[in-house]
Amino acid sequence: MEKLKTAVLGASGYTGAEAVRLIMGHPNLDLVALTAHRHAGKAYAEVYPHLAHQGLPDLQNWQDVKWDEVDAVFACLPHGASEDTIAEIAQKSIKIIDLSADFRLKDAQIYEKTYGRKHTSPELLAGAVYGLTEYARDNLKTASLVACPGCYPTASLLAVLPALKHINTDNIIIDAKSGVSGAGRKESTALIYPETAEGAHAYAVGNHRHGPEIDEKLSAATGQNITVSFTPHLIPMNRGMIATVNVELNDGVLVDDLRTVYEARYKDEAFVHVEAEGIVPHTRHIRASNQCRIGIFADRNPSRAVIISVIDNLTKGSSGQAVQNLNGMMGWDETLGLNLVPVFP
Amino acid sequence: MEKLKTAVLGASGYTGAEAVRLIMGHPNLDLVALTAHRHAGKAYAEVYPHLAHQGLPDLQNWQDVKWDEVDAVFACLPHGASEDTIAEIAQKSIKIIDLSADFRLKDAQIYEKTYGRKHTSPELLAGAVYGLTEYARDNLKTASLVACPGCYPTASLLAVLPALKHINTDNIIIDAKSGVSGAGRKESTALIYPETAEGAHAYAVGNHRHGPEIDEKLSAATGQNITVSFTPHLIPMNRGMIATVNVELNDGVLVDDLRTVYEARYKDEAFVHVEAEGIVPHTRHIRASNQCRIGIFADRNPSRAVIISVIDNLTKGSSGQAVQNLNGMMGWDETLGLNLVPVFP
Amino acid sequence: MEKLKTAVLGASGYTGAEAVRLIMGHPNLDLVALTAHRHAGKAYAEVYPHLAHQGLPDLQNWQDVKWDEVDAVFACLPHGASEDTIAEIAQKSIKIIDLSADFRLKDAQIYEKTYGRKHTSPELLAGAVYGLTEYARDNLKTASLVACPGCYPTASLLAVLPALKHINTDNIIIDAKSGVSGAGRKESTALIYPETAEGAHAYAVGNHRHGPEIDEKLSAATGQNITVSFTPHLIPMNRGMIATVNVELNDGVLVDDLRTVYEARYKDEAFVHVEAEGIVPHTRHIRASNQCRIGIFADRNPSRAVIISVIDNLTKGSSGQAVQNLNGMMGWDETLGLNLVPVFP
Amino acid sequence: MEKLKTAVLGASGYTGAEAVRLIMGHPNLDLVALTAHRHAGKAYAEVYPHLAHQGLPDLQNWQDVKWDEVDAVFACLPHGASEDTIAEIAQKSIKIIDLSADFRLKDAQIYEKTYGRKHTSPELLAGAVYGLTEYARDNLKTASLVACPGCYPTASLLAVLPALKHINTDNIIIDAKSGVSGAGRKESTALIYPETAEGAHAYAVGNHRHGPEIDEKLSAATGQNITVSFTPHLIPMNRGMIATVNVELNDGVLVDDLRTVYEARYKDEAFVHVEAEGIVPHTRHIRASNQCRIGIFADRNPSRAVIISVIDNLTKGSSGQAVQNLNGMMGWDETLGLNLVPVFP
Repeated sequence: MEKLKTAVLGASGYTGAEAVRLIMGHPNLDLVALTAHRHAGKAYAEVYPHLAHQGLPDLQNWQDVKWDEVDAVFACLPHGASEDTIAEIAQKSIKIIDLSADFRLKDAQIYEKTYGRKHTSPELLAGAVYGLTEYARDNLKTASLVACPGCYPTASLLAVLPALKHINTDNIIIDAKSGVSGAGRKESTALIYPETAEGAHAYAVGNHRHGPEIDEKLSAATGQNITVSFTPHLIPMNRGMIATVNVELNDGVLVDDLRTVYEARYKDEAFVHVEAEGIVPHTRHIRASNQCRIGIFADRNPSRAVIISVIDNLTKGSSGQAVQNLNGMMGWDETLGLNLVPVFP
Repeated sequence: MEKLKTAVLGASGYTGAEAVRLIMGHPNLDLVALTAHRHAGKAYAEVYPHLAHQGLPDLQNWQDVKWDEVDAVFACLPHGASEDTIAEIAQKSIKIIDLSADFRLKDAQIYEKTYGRKHTSPELLAGAVYGLTEYARDNLKTASLVACPGCYPTASLLAVLPALKHINTDNIIIDAKSGVSGAGRKESTALIYPETAEGAHAYAVGNHRHGPEIDEKLSAATGQNITVSFTPHLIPMNRGMIATVNVELNDGVLVDDLRTVYEARYKDEAFVHVEAEGIVPHTRHIRASNQCRIGIFADRNPSRAVIISVIDNLTKGSSGQAVQNLNGMMGWDETLGLNLVPVFP
Repeated sequence: MEKLKTAVLGASGYTGAEAVRLIMGHPNLDLVALTAHRHAGKAYAEVYPHLAHQGLPDLQNWQDVKWDEVDAVFACLPHGASEDTIAEIAQKSIKIIDLSADFRLKDAQIYEKTYGRKHTSPELLAGAVYGLTEYARDNLKTASLVACPGCYPTASLLAVLPALKHINTDNIIIDAKSGVSGAGRKESTALIYPETAEGAHAYAVGNHRHGPEIDEKLSAATGQNITVSFTPHLIPMNRGMIATVNVELNDGVLVDDLRTVYEARYKDEAFVHVEAEGIVPHTRHIRASNQCRIGIFADRNPSRAVIISVIDNLTKGSSGQAVQNLNGMMGWDETLGLNLVPVFP
Repeated sequence: MEKLKTAVLGASGYTGAEAVRLIMGHPNLDLVALTAHRHAGKAYAEVYPHLAHQGLPDLQNWQDVKWDEVDAVFACLPHGASEDTIAEIAQKSIKIIDLSADFRLKDAQIYEKTYGRKHTSPELLAGAVYGLTEYARDNLKTASLVACPGCYPTASLLAVLPALKHINTDNIIIDAKSGVSGAGRKESTALIYPETAEGAHAYAVGNHRHGPEIDEKLSAATGQNITVSFTPHLIPMNRGMIATVNVELNDGVLVDDLRTVYEARYKDEAFVHVEAEGIVPHTRHIRASNQCRIGIFADRNPSRAVIISVIDNLTKGSSGQAVQNLNGMMGWDETLGLNLVPVFP
């Protein structure tokens, strides 16, 4: 079989580098182009030394890519930038997996309110598939543009979706914790080691951009208007994300019932694992893999339960899920290139 | 003035070492004895090299301490061990500040259920003052035995107590995160660096021992039976603790009202600071100090609010509060020896 | 082709777990048995949760392994334990790759002096091949027992061997730094997070067990009696190792000459990369890969040079090199199963 | 006694914040002004939240300080900026402790070569005292301008100076490791958590700016021309620095002799401690204190020895030594305000 020729747009960010890592290990993918506006012309190893000695293409401007020779694109651009670039590329018959926020929200008004800019490609938005893979398979098969969920929505939705019929959807409390790579590779004093190591803090309390995304997808799944409580925290680790979800069980629902529901929903999933009773998932145990692990626990309050999901924000929370989506778009085995054994310690 | 002669029992644990650090910087305290069962006879610096070159007494068995020459004791023993030792020492006229869990719970049955052993000193328990200093001042003045709150209860109670009249007390969700020193200085594979660094996880979900303590104190404050949701996490940092509390506001209560209530309650406190709107407290900004900082935020759900408190688990969450309590017992300025500027970075 | 059936002895240590990770990704290897004395009977995921959900065999006692059905063994046992076990297994026609220290030193007297026990299998020792792969290929082809070098010797020898003819071998100063996984998965207070994070220290100064190993291999390469200066340090990271080697150049030798020598020696190596002038290798850039990267620098003192090598102590410094050695023993492409893209960040 | 009125110039850097912390705990010092060019007009807590709630003055431009009301200045400015500012302030009768590099090197040509700019205040330079306090006391008493040594020179010189008569000064190998705060509070992608955590690397190999400073001071102490080998590394910790010095002993000198020399030199020092045989100093054990601890060890090579010193780069390596120098300038007890118990863990 000839391999699919892929390009990574925005290869200078962490999700771009993770996409490159995964493409390199994928049996059906070839990497033919890497773009990065500010670094065009440089060897990729100048930007990411860990990817030196691998024979990778140099960085270039996306306009200079020979798009006729590209079959699929992983777009790892900042929001806004992504939309404009994709609007151009979308005119060619290229599969596009967008890792930005630009095509995640179906409601363009919420997009504008959340991201502070008007969405200018409503027709593209209409056709974009929201690629939470485990819930998007049918649509992926015919999709030409897939919007990969944000990392927090991935961890949160996988943790909450199976429960929706069994809980009070007005009382979903998500307390989330992310590793620092989630903030991106930014020139920012707030992210330097002394400001982020050896301590923890919440941020964007009450107004994180991933909140509306979680709301929209939960609302779509239920037909109700759901507003979750969502408080993200930054903690000192490179990779990893926890969503600790506290829910109020409907009358008569027991925690064991909830576990049964989750086990049924995810038993055939390659990447989502419901842990046995009493097993608490750690982020470090799924590091660098495409796994999501979910633990279900009795709360101290007998009418409530705690659902905990962990993912690697750069893999299942971003580039891993992107590859999983491409596998789905191509009709391939969804695990191709993604049988990544977690790296521990 | 002659200094008060103090001893630290269980000086081989982290709270013991922190008590020593604070005593050394306290103008009214002399350190006359250090005990540690397993290490009796050793120089303290063998156990804690950071306290070398300070002229500290050697470690000894607590039975060998000249108790006639001791005015006050910081008992940093494991629960169970603490109760028995204190029962003996309590017969002398020594001020006792107990940092274990043995005298925190007023209800001996809950103690037994929580700690798996029968409480054998009910008469001592009856007289013990629960030393959440900001709420215990009147009782401290006449106390001879003070039980210092656990670290999670300290962070949680300071965050929740002022709100009780303004929130639904059936729906208090506490998501807490602790640094690794909170687990103590234990010979434990689960605590070695590769098992605790670069990752995060919840633990004791639904059954952490500090849950009943929080319940009991909130219930006592309201006369209601309160059961909080409480999920602790271990995150890779030495010191520090966050309690992120999600609460449901009573009808008509606004977040600004809540902030007003907190500001009124804590405006004269030396160690508890309510942050201005929009300021998120970080654990690293109160490191090694006796401060508690509290941020109050609108939740995404307009009927809810988020209250975030941070403390250093070894200082305000343990030995710092212990010294604060001794200051209160002695009728001294409560800040004596505790004007610790946070150490950052 | 039928896959080679492999077993991992001592699968409860970090090198064992890393061997399992690498075997799982190797196209020619099947994993048929995992042993761990203390944990026999447990699911492997109980000991290493990151390897859950992979269908791995349970842990068993090594005596219970069906050795007739095993083709190759990775022995990840502590020294001493390894020798005795291997002496038994060696009687079957099984390829043995030993990751312990038991067969590294050719001189049994130095072994005894270094490890405090008499070597009891001198005949096995005589036949064992020291598996610094890049320098052992010819011998690997016919070897039945390969002793994998220690992590420090791997980093140090790869950094020093090419230089030997060009430097004063009486003045080789190796300052090495290791991540904490190098200390093993031990129940040890000295290794818990608060004792190892946020700080650094030397250890075993002047008497680390890897010193004699480095000496013996450098001496064998030159016919001289070489004693290196070697000071290891523990630094707060899970994986990674640096050897910073300061050498005195022979008269007339320039740093550029040295680089030319290294480039010539390693230009065809798949895993050892000599960095271009000015590029400093980081451990984080080879994390979880089998790479060794070497930088060569002018010292401030014009008669000296600095050679810096980095490896992942668990991969090239241990289980990765072990797989590389097995590949060599089997006559396979040496990179089989080892094209591991570094995991960053 | 009236307190000395002090100002901190460049209070937005880490050394500035550490100076503030130390001034706040100093019985004889008042803090009257804080300057920071870019942040003038802001509350200090906006820049350093850990110093909130302390009643500190707002940040201002240094030109706006009422210099008539200032007795002493800690100048924590970048090099170059420091020189120009100090040239102006020096005209008033103010004690100046400069923490920049601008007055450390006596040789203006080496300064120019090292820092890439011409020194423009040669007359100030001539009068500046190099404030390695333990070796500068006599000069401090009459000094009006003290240049505080760099962090690496502090650790290195305290480790090497006592040995000079007993070692081959042509063969001094300093391998140094610093915490990340040593790089300053910079907006730099290279310093963000994912680029600095969980890994280690050398930097500025062969050309770090602190090399010439070490050379000059060792040369001045001996009358010889000394060029040390000096390789700094960045390791993942906030504070702390190790200098591991490998030296060649003169004929007949034993390691025990060396220890005797060090013990004699430092036995009366409040902050420099020579550890007993076998004790390895850790950076974490002197964290946030003004201590330097030195261990002396036999090397594997009997003609060599290893001297290891640890300091906190921000305290003894910077602002702590600055306060120690001011104490010396004022004729006060040198330990005033510096009896800082190390913060561990």
